[in-house]
Amino acid sequence: MKKTTAIVLGLCTSLAAGVAVSQEAGSAAVEARHHQMEMIAYNTGILGGMAKGEMDYNAEMATSAATNLHAMAMLDRATLWVEGTEQGAVEGSRAKAEIWSDPETFDAKFKALQDASAAMMEVAGTDLDGLKGGMGAIGKACGDCHDTFRGPRN
Amino acid sequence: MKKTTAIVLGLCTSLAAGVAVSQEAGSAAVEARHHQMEMIAYNTGILGGMAKGEMDYNAEMATSAATNLHAMAMLDRATLWVEGTEQGAVEGSRAKAEIWSDPETFDAKFKALQDASAAMMEVAGTDLDGLKGGMGAIGKACGDCHDTFRGPRN
Repeated sequence: MKKTTAIVLGLCTSLAAGVAVSQEAGSAAVEARHHQMEMIAYNTGILGGMAKGEMDYNAEMATSAATNLHAMAMLDRATLWVEGTEQGAVEGSRAKAEIWSDPETFDAKFKALQDASAAMMEVAGTDLDGLKGGMGAIGKACGDCHDTFRGPRN
Repeated sequence: MKKTTAIVLGLCTSLAAGVAVSQEAGSAAVEARHHQMEMIAYNTGILGGMAKGEMDYNAEMATSAATNLHAMAMLDRATLWVEGTEQGAVEGSRAKAEIWSDPETFDAKFKALQDASAAMMEVAGTDLDGLKGGMGAIGKACGDCHDTFRGPRN
């Protein structure tokens, strides 16, 4: 906790001062985004595994995964997608600069995942067909955003 | 995504079948919990840094951090705190077995963070004094739960 606190100091100070984010603070934001993406992948993996028949359908688990997927998609982006943390500026980042130069399109791409996961929350626990029906929009949202706003592997 | 999907297969299959969770699936759940905890630490670090005066107060950032802290505390635990993933059973886990043998107390400890972060969402963006006033309950919730349910470093 102490280390994390230290790391984010520069982030907030920089933002408050309107200056470029420090390398250390930028790294903390990029790491936080990666935690967000890993959680999205974890929950999508549970739903996708059931949809593909690679695991048994379980209504409680499916609803839990859909609920958490939606929560991760709904996170406030001000402390995560911090300007100055694009690929090339901060090690480990694959975020394209267009995220910040074209925020309307980025918002729309994120909203597609928010909407798809909200819809999945409604159907995941009903039955396997419901879950399967909701899966396409989630996969499309992930792919569309990555195609547009994620750079090549570092 | 493919790797994650593969990893969680065993998790859901095991749960559906009511058998012990596999090592691989257990590791995926433990990793997901660690992402959750890291996100809690990231957002608490931003709030704590402002409360201690180690960084300038910024209402937008404070509200964003409080909002995301609450979202992380509210995640559904069915797919995260999976039985059979206590310390000793899965590498990297520091979760005490009491989490599963005494779920009522675990619920209550988690609810303390949910309540404290909900209260923080209301005050974080008002002013620095409001933020400071909400900080104690968050720190207490973290500490109480760790003291009770987190084992020693691995």
